[in-house]
Amino acid sequence: MKVVAEISIIPMGKGPSVSKYVKKAIEVLKKYNLKVVPNAMGTVVEGELDEVIKAYKEAHLKVLEDVDRVVSQLKIDHRKDKENSIERKLKAIEVE
Amino acid sequence: MKVVAEISIIPMGKGPSVSKYVKKAIEVLKKYNLKVVPNAMGTVVEGELDEVIKAYKEAHLKVLEDVDRVVSQLKIDHRKDKENSIERKLKAIEVE
Amino acid sequence: MKVVAEISIIPMGKGPSVSKYVKKAIEVLKKYNLKVVPNAMGTVVEGELDEVIKAYKEAHLKVLEDVDRVVSQLKIDHRKDKENSIERKLKAIEVE
Amino acid sequence: MKVVAEISIIPMGKGPSVSKYVKKAIEVLKKYNLKVVPNAMGTVVEGELDEVIKAYKEAHLKVLEDVDRVVSQLKIDHRKDKENSIERKLKAIEVE
Repeated sequence: MKVVAEISIIPMGKGPSVSKYVKKAIEVLKKYNLKVVPNAMGTVVEGELDEVIKAYKEAHLKVLEDVDRVVSQLKIDHRKDKENSIERKLKAIEVE
Repeated sequence: MKVVAEISIIPMGKGPSVSKYVKKAIEVLKKYNLKVVPNAMGTVVEGELDEVIKAYKEAHLKVLEDVDRVVSQLKIDHRKDKENSIERKLKAIEVE
Repeated sequence: MKVVAEISIIPMGKGPSVSKYVKKAIEVLKKYNLKVVPNAMGTVVEGELDEVIKAYKEAHLKVLEDVDRVVSQLKIDHRKDKENSIERKLKAIEVE
Repeated sequence: MKVVAEISIIPMGKGPSVSKYVKKAIEVLKKYNLKVVPNAMGTVVEGELDEVIKAYKEAHLKVLEDVDRVVSQLKIDHRKDKENSIERKLKAIEVE
């Protein structure tokens, strides 16, 4: 059963510009069996729960290789009553 | 000085399907002087800090008209060292 | 009608240790007509919706005085069916 | 290396009162080798990264047993430059 989730990872203490770290995190997410859709505040992913959690953990640790402190967030939307997907959710709110 | 933010609003107690409430919230956000970009887990907005906060508050209250309980989240990315925009942030992580 | 909310403010680019900025933010929150309960990951507040939002905005801007970039989060739990308070919520989950 | 994290789990579609589900989630967290400190908006935990993630996943799935949809959040604060703990973090912001 697929879940839709959002991952955001904030590297602290390396100055205000952190996109190079964020890019590495997104590269990690793309190695997994997930649909990966970055936005301006985080990255939405779709896939099996275990795959999402493993990808999140590796992305978090990847960013921590380069910086002393990371605050990361994983938000999971998980439903049993119907199939959950990025496409279905966007269609439901009429975003093309 | 513009900020980039993400808003998500969860209506509780009305069953698992809540897109009709979320759609109303997005309509509210669009009335404001903001760039509004919905994704599968929330809505990214760009605009002045006060405009973002006012829009968030009205969207939150709009959803609360229809349900007994709402849990909403506002996350603001605010920087002084350079201009902040959805476009710049996506370019920095090389999302077209 | 009171809401219960959680505020967290992350100052970026000033090194991994940021407690002095967080302390200033909490001082700001305490000036408002709110119950203020810091925890290890954020600060829970209780009060009127407008008061919570005003306090959050001032705390966010206070931290931004000292750093180039701030990522802050406001999460509001708002219900109409019964009185909402920190005390009631903790009692409901049997935390003394 | 210990991390400090916050877990919040929102059961959707079962009415506005959800404390009985939240209580079950907290019981799950307590089975793990973690310090567990509930607050009014979530539960702060302290422990090894893998332990935190496993506990979060089980608590998420536990709540999903009883409801059709769950939106959960895990926020991890992970630092390498010094020991991270709930006690140290509270001391740094001068909360007794």
